[in-house]
Amino acid sequence: MSDKLYGACVFGQSGGPTAVINASAYGVIKTALAAPEITNVYGAAHGIAGILQDTLYDMGQEDPYELELLLNTPSSELGSCRYKMADPAKDDKDYQKILEIFKKYNIRYFFYNGGNDSMDTCNKVSQFMERVGYDCRIIGIPKTIDNDLCGTDHCPGFGSAAKYIATSIAEVCKDTHVYDVGTITVVEIMGRHAGWLTASSALASISCAPPDLIYLPEVDFEMERFMDDVTRVYKEKNKCLIAVSEGVHYADGTFVSEAKVSSTDGFGHVQLGGLAATLAGLIKLHTGSKTRAIELSLLQRCGAHLASQTDIDEAYLAGKHAVECAIAGETGKMVAFERDMTGGKYACKFVLQPLTVVANIEKKVPREWINAEGNNVTRAFFDYALPLIQGENNRIVENGLPRFARLKKALVGGR
Amino acid sequence: MSDKLYGACVFGQSGGPTAVINASAYGVIKTALAAPEITNVYGAAHGIAGILQDTLYDMGQEDPYELELLLNTPSSELGSCRYKMADPAKDDKDYQKILEIFKKYNIRYFFYNGGNDSMDTCNKVSQFMERVGYDCRIIGIPKTIDNDLCGTDHCPGFGSAAKYIATSIAEVCKDTHVYDVGTITVVEIMGRHAGWLTASSALASISCAPPDLIYLPEVDFEMERFMDDVTRVYKEKNKCLIAVSEGVHYADGTFVSEAKVSSTDGFGHVQLGGLAATLAGLIKLHTGSKTRAIELSLLQRCGAHLASQTDIDEAYLAGKHAVECAIAGETGKMVAFERDMTGGKYACKFVLQPLTVVANIEKKVPREWINAEGNNVTRAFFDYALPLIQGENNRIVENGLPRFARLKKALVGGR
Repeated sequence: MSDKLYGACVFGQSGGPTAVINASAYGVIKTALAAPEITNVYGAAHGIAGILQDTLYDMGQEDPYELELLLNTPSSELGSCRYKMADPAKDDKDYQKILEIFKKYNIRYFFYNGGNDSMDTCNKVSQFMERVGYDCRIIGIPKTIDNDLCGTDHCPGFGSAAKYIATSIAEVCKDTHVYDVGTITVVEIMGRHAGWLTASSALASISCAPPDLIYLPEVDFEMERFMDDVTRVYKEKNKCLIAVSEGVHYADGTFVSEAKVSSTDGFGHVQLGGLAATLAGLIKLHTGSKTRAIELSLLQRCGAHLASQTDIDEAYLAGKHAVECAIAGETGKMVAFERDMTGGKYACKFVLQPLTVVANIEKKVPREWINAEGNNVTRAFFDYALPLIQGENNRIVENGLPRFARLKKALVGGR
Repeated sequence: MSDKLYGACVFGQSGGPTAVINASAYGVIKTALAAPEITNVYGAAHGIAGILQDTLYDMGQEDPYELELLLNTPSSELGSCRYKMADPAKDDKDYQKILEIFKKYNIRYFFYNGGNDSMDTCNKVSQFMERVGYDCRIIGIPKTIDNDLCGTDHCPGFGSAAKYIATSIAEVCKDTHVYDVGTITVVEIMGRHAGWLTASSALASISCAPPDLIYLPEVDFEMERFMDDVTRVYKEKNKCLIAVSEGVHYADGTFVSEAKVSSTDGFGHVQLGGLAATLAGLIKLHTGSKTRAIELSLLQRCGAHLASQTDIDEAYLAGKHAVECAIAGETGKMVAFERDMTGGKYACKFVLQPLTVVANIEKKVPREWINAEGNNVTRAFFDYALPLIQGENNRIVENGLPRFARLKKALVGGR
C-alpha cells in the first residue's frame, strides 16, 4: 500500500458545475504540482471525454496566480461532460482507450471530481485498472450542489448554492413585501430528486423571513393540499412566498412540472416556462391573486460571488486530501466529509469512503427534518445547514466585476 | 426663498424597489433628524398612500444603528405604492386630503423618492400647495433601476442593478461554456421601454465574455433577423448567449412577449413563462439546439448584496442633498446627477432640476450607443456605465446572511 508510485496524474471535472468545483481543482493541481511522486499534472478537457479523446492540458504551464484565482471562479474551468460509461463486462472499448492514454503518458494517478455518475465512472475505471493489473491510484472528489451523495456529511458546492439561495430568498422576501396589494410569489429551486437546496430557502429567516411554504421532492405533492395551503396563508397575510423544488412529483412519480393539467383550467398543455410559471398560473386561477414566478435557474449553481468561504475551503482541502491519500497508496475511494461538533463548534474531517458505497445512490432530506404537513422544514435542518454557509469569500474584483482565472490550457500530445 | 421654515417633514418611497432606495431614505432621515428647522421626521407607509391614509411612522424613534443598516437593505423599507394621482384640475380630493394631513402634523417638507410617476406626483402636489398658498417645500429624489429619468445623467438604483446583471451574466457565461454539446441561452432582463439594464449585460466582458447578442427596446425587433443572428453565432461557436430586454417589440409596438405566435409553430398561445421561455422555445424549433431560458426577474432589482458602493453613496447623498436644498428654500425640484469627468476621473455632482422637466418623460439608450445591426452596444455605453458599477459594498453579514435594517415603524397619529 505505501510503496511510492511515480508517474503523471490526470484530473477531470464532470457533471453540472458548481461555484466551488474549481476550488477542488486548485487543491488537486497545487498539491500535485508540489508532489515529488507526480511527474506531470494534466487536466482533462471535458472530464472523461478529454481522456478518451486525448485532449489533455499541461497544468504545469499555468501561471500560479491564475491557478489561485480558481478558488473564486465558478463553473468547471477545464470543461465538463455527462458521459455514462458502459458496463466494462459488456463493452470495454472506452476502458481500453483510457488504459492506452494512461500508458501513453505514464498516468498513475487519476482524480475525478463529480457527483453520483462521476463516482460510478471512477469506480468502473478503478475496477478495470485493477483487473488488467495497471498500477494506478484513483480517487473521487465529491461535487454537487444537490448534496445527494451518500457516505459524506455534505458535498462541496452545496454550501455555496444554499448561501446563494437563502440570500436571494431574503432579498426577494424584502421585495415582495413592498406593496400594499397582495401577491403570491413562487420560487423554483433546483433539485430533481433531493430537496436540500429548496430546504435552504428556510435559512432566509435569519435575514428577513423564510418562505411561508416549502415543498420538497421527499414528500409526494398533492395539488389540492397545495392550493389549500396557499389560500390559507394568503388569506391570513395577504402575501405568500413559496419555495418549491423543481423535482416535486405526485404520488405516482409524475413530476408536477411535466404533468398535463386538465384542459378545462386553461392549462391543457405542458408549460414551457417551467414549474414556477405553471404553479403561479394555477394559483392565479384559483385565488385571483397577483402572482409572480421566479426560477433561480443556473444562477444558483454558478453564483461564485456569494460562495461560502467554508465551502471554498472544504472543496480545496478535498482536492488536496485526494492527492495526499493517493500518494500514500489509497485507491478506489472517494474523499468524504465527517462533521465534528466537539464543543458545539463545527469542524469538518476528511475521510475516505469506498467508491462502491457512494456510486449511484442518492441521499435525501430525512423525513423527520420536514414538518408533518410536508410544507416546511424543522430546526434539525437549520442545525445541519447553517455551518455550511458561513464565511464571506475574498474574491478579487477588477473594474467592478469578478476577476476569474484565465488559464492557458496548453494542449499536451496530439489529437 | 431663503427664509427659514420650521416644521415637520414627511418622506415616502414609491414605485418598484431597488437595491439602494433605502440608502436615499437614510440620507433624508439622517439629515432631517439633525436639521434644527425640521421638528419631526415622518416616514409615509407605502408612499403617498400612507399620507392619504394618515399612516405615518415616527422616524425619530428608530435606533440609529438600524437606520444606518438601511444603506444595505434592499427594497422600500417603508413600503411602496403605485398610485397615480388624478389631475387636480379635475379631481382635487386626494390633494385636499394631503393638505389636511400636512396641516394636521405641520408638515412643511415633503421628500418623495421614485421614478417617472412619482416625480409626476411630486409635481402635482407641489403645484397644488403653491396654488392654495400652503407653505411647503417639495423635493423629488430619483430612483429607478430602469435609468430612464430625464434631466439626470443616471438614476440611483441603476448602477447596482447593472452590477448585478453584469456579474450574473459573467457567471452564467462561465456556466454555459462548460459542456462540449452546444447550447443557446436566452437571458431576459428588465426594462419595459428603455434598454439600459439589458445593455449592462455587455459589461460582463470585463470578467468573462459579453453576451453574443443583445437586444434592446430602442430598436424594433424582427423575428427573422433575430433567428438569423442566433443561427449564425451558433454555427460559428456552437454556443450562443443572448441578452434580451423584456420590452423588445415589433415595429408596430406589439411586445414580443405578448405577441401571439403563429399556431403552426406549436406556440399558438401567449406564453406564461415570459419572453425568455418563448424565444428559447422558438429557437429550439428553428435550430434544434438545446436551449435554456433564464429570467433575472426580481433578483436584479433587489440584489443588495451586489450593490455598487458608488450607487449606494450617490443614493445616500441624493437624499441628503434633497433635505439640504429644501431647508435652503428650494421646492418643486428633483435632485439630479451631473457627471464630471475632469482629468478623466468620474465624479458625480448633485444639482436640481424643475420637476416639470423630468415628470413623465422616458430617457432611452441613444441609438448611436447601439451597433448598426441593433444586436449589441458600442464602446460609448461602456464608458457611460462602467463608473456606476464600481465599489464593493460593506454590508454586514450575520450568521452567513445579510443583516437588514429592522425598524420599529412606530405609528404617528391614529387611523
